Amino acid sequence: MLLNKHIPFFYIFERIKVEFWLVTVYMAGIGLIDEGHIFKSISIPLAIPSILGTAISLILGFRTNQAYSRWWEARQVWGAIVNDSRSFVRQLLSFTADIPDGEAKTAFIQRLSFRQIAFCYALGDALRGLDPLQKIKSLLSDEDILFLEQHQNKHNALLLLNGRDLKSALAEKRLNAYQQVQLDETINKLCDSMGKCERIKNTVFPATYSLVVHLFIYLFVIFLPFGLVDFLGYVEIPLVVAIATMFFYIEKTAIIMQDPFENRPSDTAVSSISRTIEINIKQMLKYDTVPEKWEADDYYIM
Amino acid sequence: MLLNKHIPFFYIFERIKVEFWLVTVYMAGIGLIDEGHIFKSISIPLAIPSILGTAISLILGFRTNQAYSRWWEARQVWGAIVNDSRSFVRQLLSFTADIPDGEAKTAFIQRLSFRQIAFCYALGDALRGLDPLQKIKSLLSDEDILFLEQHQNKHNALLLLNGRDLKSALAEKRLNAYQQVQLDETINKLCDSMGKCERIKNTVFPATYSLVVHLFIYLFVIFLPFGLVDFLGYVEIPLVVAIATMFFYIEKTAIIMQDPFENRPSDTAVSSISRTIEINIKQMLKYDTVPEKWEADDYYIM
Amino acid sequence: MLLNKHIPFFYIFERIKVEFWLVTVYMAGIGLIDEGHIFKSISIPLAIPSILGTAISLILGFRTNQAYSRWWEARQVWGAIVNDSRSFVRQLLSFTADIPDGEAKTAFIQRLSFRQIAFCYALGDALRGLDPLQKIKSLLSDEDILFLEQHQNKHNALLLLNGRDLKSALAEKRLNAYQQVQLDETINKLCDSMGKCERIKNTVFPATYSLVVHLFIYLFVIFLPFGLVDFLGYVEIPLVVAIATMFFYIEKTAIIMQDPFENRPSDTAVSSISRTIEINIKQMLKYDTVPEKWEADDYYIM
Amino acid sequence: MLLNKHIPFFYIFERIKVEFWLVTVYMAGIGLIDEGHIFKSISIPLAIPSILGTAISLILGFRTNQAYSRWWEARQVWGAIVNDSRSFVRQLLSFTADIPDGEAKTAFIQRLSFRQIAFCYALGDALRGLDPLQKIKSLLSDEDILFLEQHQNKHNALLLLNGRDLKSALAEKRLNAYQQVQLDETINKLCDSMGKCERIKNTVFPATYSLVVHLFIYLFVIFLPFGLVDFLGYVEIPLVVAIATMFFYIEKTAIIMQDPFENRPSDTAVSSISRTIEINIKQMLKYDTVPEKWEADDYYIM
Amino acid sequence: MLLNKHIPFFYIFERIKVEFWLVTVYMAGIGLIDEGHIFKSISIPLAIPSILGTAISLILGFRTNQAYSRWWEARQVWGAIVNDSRSFVRQLLSFTADIPDGEAKTAFIQRLSFRQIAFCYALGDALRGLDPLQKIKSLLSDEDILFLEQHQNKHNALLLLNGRDLKSALAEKRLNAYQQVQLDETINKLCDSMGKCERIKNTVFPATYSLVVHLFIYLFVIFLPFGLVDFLGYVEIPLVVAIATMFFYIEKTAIIMQDPFENRPSDTAVSSISRTIEINIKQMLKYDTVPEKWEADDYYIM
Repeated sequence: MLLNKHIPFFYIFERIKVEFWLVTVYMAGIGLIDEGHIFKSISIPLAIPSILGTAISLILGFRTNQAYSRWWEARQVWGAIVNDSRSFVRQLLSFTADIPDGEAKTAFIQRLSFRQIAFCYALGDALRGLDPLQKIKSLLSDEDILFLEQHQNKHNALLLLNGRDLKSALAEKRLNAYQQVQLDETINKLCDSMGKCERIKNTVFPATYSLVVHLFIYLFVIFLPFGLVDFLGYVEIPLVVAIATMFFYIEKTAIIMQDPFENRPSDTAVSSISRTIEINIKQMLKYDTVPEKWEADDYYIM
Repeated sequence: MLLNKHIPFFYIFERIKVEFWLVTVYMAGIGLIDEGHIFKSISIPLAIPSILGTAISLILGFRTNQAYSRWWEARQVWGAIVNDSRSFVRQLLSFTADIPDGEAKTAFIQRLSFRQIAFCYALGDALRGLDPLQKIKSLLSDEDILFLEQHQNKHNALLLLNGRDLKSALAEKRLNAYQQVQLDETINKLCDSMGKCERIKNTVFPATYSLVVHLFIYLFVIFLPFGLVDFLGYVEIPLVVAIATMFFYIEKTAIIMQDPFENRPSDTAVSSISRTIEINIKQMLKYDTVPEKWEADDYYIM
Repeated sequence: MLLNKHIPFFYIFERIKVEFWLVTVYMAGIGLIDEGHIFKSISIPLAIPSILGTAISLILGFRTNQAYSRWWEARQVWGAIVNDSRSFVRQLLSFTADIPDGEAKTAFIQRLSFRQIAFCYALGDALRGLDPLQKIKSLLSDEDILFLEQHQNKHNALLLLNGRDLKSALAEKRLNAYQQVQLDETINKLCDSMGKCERIKNTVFPATYSLVVHLFIYLFVIFLPFGLVDFLGYVEIPLVVAIATMFFYIEKTAIIMQDPFENRPSDTAVSSISRTIEINIKQMLKYDTVPEKWEADDYYIM
Repeated sequence: MLLNKHIPFFYIFERIKVEFWLVTVYMAGIGLIDEGHIFKSISIPLAIPSILGTAISLILGFRTNQAYSRWWEARQVWGAIVNDSRSFVRQLLSFTADIPDGEAKTAFIQRLSFRQIAFCYALGDALRGLDPLQKIKSLLSDEDILFLEQHQNKHNALLLLNGRDLKSALAEKRLNAYQQVQLDETINKLCDSMGKCERIKNTVFPATYSLVVHLFIYLFVIFLPFGLVDFLGYVEIPLVVAIATMFFYIEKTAIIMQDPFENRPSDTAVSSISRTIEINIKQMLKYDTVPEKWEADDYYIM
Repeated sequence: MLLNKHIPFFYIFERIKVEFWLVTVYMAGIGLIDEGHIFKSISIPLAIPSILGTAISLILGFRTNQAYSRWWEARQVWGAIVNDSRSFVRQLLSFTADIPDGEAKTAFIQRLSFRQIAFCYALGDALRGLDPLQKIKSLLSDEDILFLEQHQNKHNALLLLNGRDLKSALAEKRLNAYQQVQLDETINKLCDSMGKCERIKNTVFPATYSLVVHLFIYLFVIFLPFGLVDFLGYVEIPLVVAIATMFFYIEKTAIIMQDPFENRPSDTAVSSISRTIEINIKQMLKYDTVPEKWEADDYYIM
């Protein structure tokens, strides 16, 4: 997540350099040739770039709205993961009974809770294309890690393990039948959230729209100087460059926002959120030492 | 689903060829006649095409938004099918008990899980107008296939079969009463998702809007050259053609996106999603061999 | 539901004839008088109709969006009715037990399922202001019809009857307590859907907006020719008429779409949907003969 | 709710009289002074009012959309109250058992159902700032009225009373444990709907936006005549007055719509809806005499 | 929450003073230099600021919509907290049984209800960066306060305590198994609402959009005077300043609205809402003395 601390203009600008220089060179070329008054004869009315400007604004507005929706949905889904993680542990604590001759209740709750923490880290890293096992080995038993290694989808496997343990808890009468179903419902919600993240990750924003925005902006840049030839010479260069840069900037921002799980500074802050979940859960389990909050980098937090 | 790999401009352009040539011929005709300066006398102010341009932009914006909503809803529904398929199998695994003198638990779970995989393939193919039984015969028993053949709606019949088996599981005490209801709830959600797909498939986008967008663009193209007659001769041809092509391009993109189950490259990738579900479920059932991920074609994935 | 088969331009045009001729006569009048060059002195700048055009576009955009939302919500609600009808019957089939010395299980299930089919037809016809009992008499017992005749709201009474039968099923131990509650939940959803239809039917779209759109378009038509007087004589007539007709056309389309239960070709296709439900349910009950799909009319389906 | 019967232009116009006359006087003043050609020297280009017109249209569009959302949400919430009221009574009828030596079942159901009717009237009147007890005394026992008088929030107290009776019904074995929870769930939904109404009632629409729309329209009116001085003298007065009136009209409509519980003709029709609920519920309880539908007033229904 | 009582123009204006003076000084500078007719030679057509005006309007429209959504969602979440708080207490009252030899039922209910009141105050204050324990010490036992002090997230700890007490209530047979699960569901909803508030609080609105709006407005201000040089001298200063101020005003309003938990007058009125909850709950518990409603300040309520 980009923070407000340092103005992130250059973060985006870095990504539209090519377009910036293309427009600048084009405008400079037009300016030079225009000195020879060749273009005078093909001046076009400014209403044409105006119409293009309106069309670009609207299609950029659509683009921006949809990109924002994806970004915000990603954040909402991770908010739901926070909520359901806390609820899962709270339910474990307020449902589970201690049983004679069995594993101690606290050990049971800790095992499931740690798997839940691991689920968050694993999901976040898998979405970002990192090794999902990397951050979670210390949270799991060797047996669990062995089980995970047989699955492509590690986070799904963690839910499976927790479901399996709830089943034996029912058999051992640690939980009653309603409590098992209620805990299962919470796992269902986590399963939904996980699927939603994968949907956002795997669905390409309709490429045809990305293209048409780009083409419209280039059309606009190509035609605009012919509408200005009667007015000014070199002053039109920064003018057109500035407007075109703004349009490209908005477009690029949308492109970056629409994919929030790419291991980039503009990502949804899944590592930081997972850490918060870890802290909350460990405090709920009365751990004395909890990890620090995730540190923000220079102008972003992962 | 169209991928980002190869720019899909020609994919859409192919579909607006007629409009492209109509506009080009019209503009060329206007250009030729204009040589005779006949049109000079009926020049119209550019504010008229401007107003039309604003109106087109807005109605196209509406069109684009609604088409995108249908497309995105289709994808969300299939995301929900992924989630509920995984949850269904996870619930089977964490609810079902083994029973003496009955079918082995693993056989029971496998039968229902395979039907769930079959449900996804059958729904996807039925929506695309293909034979829904084609991909699923190996997943079902002969008895099940016989049952399906008596139903118009194969995917609904598969849910019915799974519901029936849950009933006998309750009778045999494989499941308790809450667990049956909870599993039934998951089948309900699948039934909802299936109905949502059918709704998107069967509801024609209001044809009156499609028409008005088309008419507005043609009006725009007809009037625009009369606003330009004072300015330029042959140069106006590519100008008007380019702008009109862009408008038609956006409209066509919306038309293609609004129907995501037509067995076309722009479809929701239901085959690929069903394959992912198959892989996930088979790994959850501890199968050693799982199928490969669905292969992407040149510039799209089905 | 209007189909794509025959272009429905005349369907809408039929409804804006008055506006069309009003504008045409007005423009012809202006044209005639203008011959006398009386209007020259009161020409107004085209920026004024431009501003009006922008304002009309935006308010028409709002109008169109809200009308579409109502139309789409109506379709979604009927989609939910399809889903819940299927779920209701599937649940009956997978929950109900046969009981000794009682009504046969199949008779019990059929009675409730047929009432569910009747619910769909009755709701659809009631929304359209038709006699809700007309299509459903063959599906119900005489006793049920007698009961319905005492209620203003026939579809609500049908849910009541099904609820009553579920109660006796619980008493007779045909269903267990969870199953009754789960089936009741499905009836609840049907009750919600029914209420949503009635809400759409009974809520007048804010009349003040309908009015302001109309007034804005008329203002636009009145002022536009004064902006064009410097340009063209008779050619302005088709120009203004065409643009005004488009605006009225869009407005009329919104007006027609916002009320989808009026027994008009543009209605939500409730009869056809109810028929689909009947076919699905009868196949689920293993009926040999199921009715045909509802036939589409010339350019629409009811 | 305003009806379509009588055009409600004057209903709104009544509320923008001040603005109308302010603009008219201003324009007349400008017109008079302009006779002296003093303003000629400070004519401004029409592009400025155009930009303002675009900005006003967009901010008015935002305003209108949000006001409509509040209005529509209010209607949706009351639709949900209709649905949940019917479901509540249907559930009472299909859950409750008769008990020996206790209150008759019908008396029990009637007491709770009448409280539900009372809840609707009380909520509607409380939202409108009327005495919530006024319409409901005949529906409640003296004891209940005494209880209500001790509560600021009468409708919440009615839910509390029904909850209390469900508890004794469980103790008396009139309901089983699942049925109590299911009925409690319905009361929960009613509690949610009631809170949503209070939210809409108590949340002031951001006053800063109301202000900025107003200021923008005034800026527009102030600058527009200076853009027109080259064109026409007295004819500009009705022109500017008409456009400004339309903008104020749209704004006022939004202001009226955003607060739907003010005991005004534009309110959500809560009295009429409550009456419909009363009729439905009394018919469900097999009452012979049910009240008439609520009468519409001249151009609205409360 | 800002009230309608005193026009809050200066509340916002205070925050855009810097921009206001920057624009004024720039315009005055332009005006002075223009006296020397230096700028004449670089006049630019007004279509350029027009295009910028359209683009600004659209991007500001996006900004405003999203800021409003965050603000409205915050209010909705607190509405849900009101509803769930009332439901929680109503459920306690209609579920809990008195038990022999145990804590009195009323004491039990009061303890949990007071924690619920404390939850609201603590959440509100924590979101605003205040000490969450400050307002709630009188509502909690010493033991509870000790427990809270060990948690970073006090409101989560309160839910944990209530969950723990529900568990012992189940063990003591004060509640049956379904009732515990149903009450737990209500706590789940509160946990969700709390997480949603934290999401809104912790998610920075994409800083890149804030920046681009600002840059677009400055571009507009920089270019606009060059489009006006042919028209007027000093009169253009208030014109440009007024339009620019309006744009900055709209932007600032969005910036303020998007963060509704900053302990500012424009905040969601969480203290006032919590007080309402306290009053409602205490009346439900039949307290004789309830606190007063929260007092509104001069032009806002906290």
